[in-house]
Amino acid sequence: MNKKRIIELQRLFSEELFESVIPFWTKHSLDHEFGGYYSCLERDGTVFDTDKFAWMQGREIWMFSKLCSEYGVKPEWLEAAKHGVEFMKEYGINENGDTYFSLDRKGNPLMQPYNIYSDCFLCTAYAEYSRVSGDKWAKEEALRLYQRIQERQTLPKGTWTKQVPGARVFSAMSFPMIQMTMARELKGYLPDEIVEPVIQSTLDAFWSKHVDWEKKRVFERVLPEGGHNFDVMEGRLLNPGHALEILWLIMDVAASRSDKKMIDDCAEVMLWSIESGWDNKYGGIYYYQDYLGYPTEKLESTMKLWWVHAEAIVAMLLAYKLTGRKEFSDWFEKITEYSFKHFSDKNNGGEWFGYLDRQGEPVFTLKGGKWKGFFHLPRTLMLCEQWLSDMIKDKV
Amino acid sequence: MNKKRIIELQRLFSEELFESVIPFWTKHSLDHEFGGYYSCLERDGTVFDTDKFAWMQGREIWMFSKLCSEYGVKPEWLEAAKHGVEFMKEYGINENGDTYFSLDRKGNPLMQPYNIYSDCFLCTAYAEYSRVSGDKWAKEEALRLYQRIQERQTLPKGTWTKQVPGARVFSAMSFPMIQMTMARELKGYLPDEIVEPVIQSTLDAFWSKHVDWEKKRVFERVLPEGGHNFDVMEGRLLNPGHALEILWLIMDVAASRSDKKMIDDCAEVMLWSIESGWDNKYGGIYYYQDYLGYPTEKLESTMKLWWVHAEAIVAMLLAYKLTGRKEFSDWFEKITEYSFKHFSDKNNGGEWFGYLDRQGEPVFTLKGGKWKGFFHLPRTLMLCEQWLSDMIKDKV
Repeated sequence: MNKKRIIELQRLFSEELFESVIPFWTKHSLDHEFGGYYSCLERDGTVFDTDKFAWMQGREIWMFSKLCSEYGVKPEWLEAAKHGVEFMKEYGINENGDTYFSLDRKGNPLMQPYNIYSDCFLCTAYAEYSRVSGDKWAKEEALRLYQRIQERQTLPKGTWTKQVPGARVFSAMSFPMIQMTMARELKGYLPDEIVEPVIQSTLDAFWSKHVDWEKKRVFERVLPEGGHNFDVMEGRLLNPGHALEILWLIMDVAASRSDKKMIDDCAEVMLWSIESGWDNKYGGIYYYQDYLGYPTEKLESTMKLWWVHAEAIVAMLLAYKLTGRKEFSDWFEKITEYSFKHFSDKNNGGEWFGYLDRQGEPVFTLKGGKWKGFFHLPRTLMLCEQWLSDMIKDKV
Repeated sequence: MNKKRIIELQRLFSEELFESVIPFWTKHSLDHEFGGYYSCLERDGTVFDTDKFAWMQGREIWMFSKLCSEYGVKPEWLEAAKHGVEFMKEYGINENGDTYFSLDRKGNPLMQPYNIYSDCFLCTAYAEYSRVSGDKWAKEEALRLYQRIQERQTLPKGTWTKQVPGARVFSAMSFPMIQMTMARELKGYLPDEIVEPVIQSTLDAFWSKHVDWEKKRVFERVLPEGGHNFDVMEGRLLNPGHALEILWLIMDVAASRSDKKMIDDCAEVMLWSIESGWDNKYGGIYYYQDYLGYPTEKLESTMKLWWVHAEAIVAMLLAYKLTGRKEFSDWFEKITEYSFKHFSDKNNGGEWFGYLDRQGEPVFTLKGGKWKGFFHLPRTLMLCEQWLSDMIKDKV
């Protein structure tokens, strides 16, 4: 990309972040009466469900804190982060110290802590918040949650585990990856002797099991000892957006270690993922695919989701930044063009639509929901804005 | 409808049942090596997942048995039913007497009995099977399952309940309805003093809580004491296909009681459901809708599903049969035309596609899956074929 284009793109991402996305959430998401964040927000910001979902609370706390870390503490952002912290501190945790999956508007618990990701997102949220606020309780709570997650990790769903003990199992990619993310967030708070082995074991599992160099795919679920079970849908499931998200996180670790081999490997695997995940007929990236081309069990497989595209954009730009290869700037341009055309609603209330049909039309006009909050998109816009700025300054 | 048209339609439904749908399942669904039924079947019948799902096993046993009840015992059908019975008898039940949600191909349990509908479908399956086969064990097992379901009904998900005790609850429409279905299937096996109160209490709950005469909608989830909570998506959820399925079941009960008032009420509520559930832009019936027009939490809401259309077809024909009103024959023709055009794949392997996008194109080409088996469609084709035959013979 030439400098003129980089400058244009930097402005595009920066304006989208600061003028469209952040204002949407600061304006519509905070519940000033009962605390915490609304996440179910229609096109114009109207709240269409008042429940408070732990994933969304944790991720929004993290994102507002991260903005303070990266751009300097802005009282509006720090207040917004604190707003979520106070709500979750008061209502979020059950008698075992685990995070409820959901609460009603006033903080009454609705759904049990059956899903350990609630705890993971809250852990990273408190770690980042404590850094920018100096809040000691948040730091201690992040470490307590991390410890508790380690205790629960062999049976993360606890008594809510539906799987029969001893039954066939797959190793899923999500939990090791969030472990790595947490460990990195807790750097400085946890000794390196704890953090580094977690990161290393995650990387080992990813490269030795989930990446298949022969089949040129990243598999979501593999046999615990490695290898595949292609007799069932689970064993063939592909999720290109998830693969790309994990790949850029790993590429970032590789960059911090100056591990050129791992950077190149990530780049290679990213290309498989985007090339096989792209919809050549209508554009955009599929949500789910079956390795053998059979139906998946997910009805929404051919839909185009905002987070898939946000993660793909980050991945392509990071790969371009680190390798300079034209394939990546081409893909970055292509996915950016698709996304700003179909998802972005900057001039009609701000933010992005979450869910498009295969053809690229919004199925709903929501900007936030039970699973769409203030996280993937602002993180993407922030990182891209920063990396493009670095490129303008010739730092890369 | 004039007699010529009725004759045409009778032939259409009859051929679809006997020449397209039944052969597809007898040919592709039985696992002759390990027993039980495959349900994940691609367009040409290729098995794309070898697991055995209890809902699908129970429903297929029921349907093959029902065909024997209605058309006389055909060895192929009775054998097919027995094939499922033997597998579930051997592998389907856990140490508490509850039905596993899923098993692998060989019958090893995979998912715990967290979902009581597995037991409900198996109960009705064994009841019908025992009628046509004279199998005493199946009759006793149906009664045992029924009894066990009654014990479990206050906490149907047992230890897998994710809801916090004492938290806000909604009353859902599904469980009372399956209770009514089971009670009706067990007529003759259970004393009328048991069956009738179950049917009556289900009808009372439906009419007094789920049907809202002012808002002219059937609500999936209402407050336990009646009324709505519109602050959250759950409280606004509409599922027109489910409403129509329940309405024709209730209309059938009303007909058996010669309760003209209830027949007319069902007819009225059916019209709201089909008129508000029909997609005026692309045709077909929506899967989910939000009463206030907000997004639902289901990404597949605007998709067109085979079972929704199958249930709507039965509902419209029964309403026409019982009321003679032209609105119902018009809707019956309209939904039938849409369905045979978009779902039916009679000339390319048989059966119907399961899942279309909003525009009416198949998202997958599967004919069977984890949730699509030998049930809704053959039941619809059978009932319509029979009712149309009755009309030809001027029985109505």
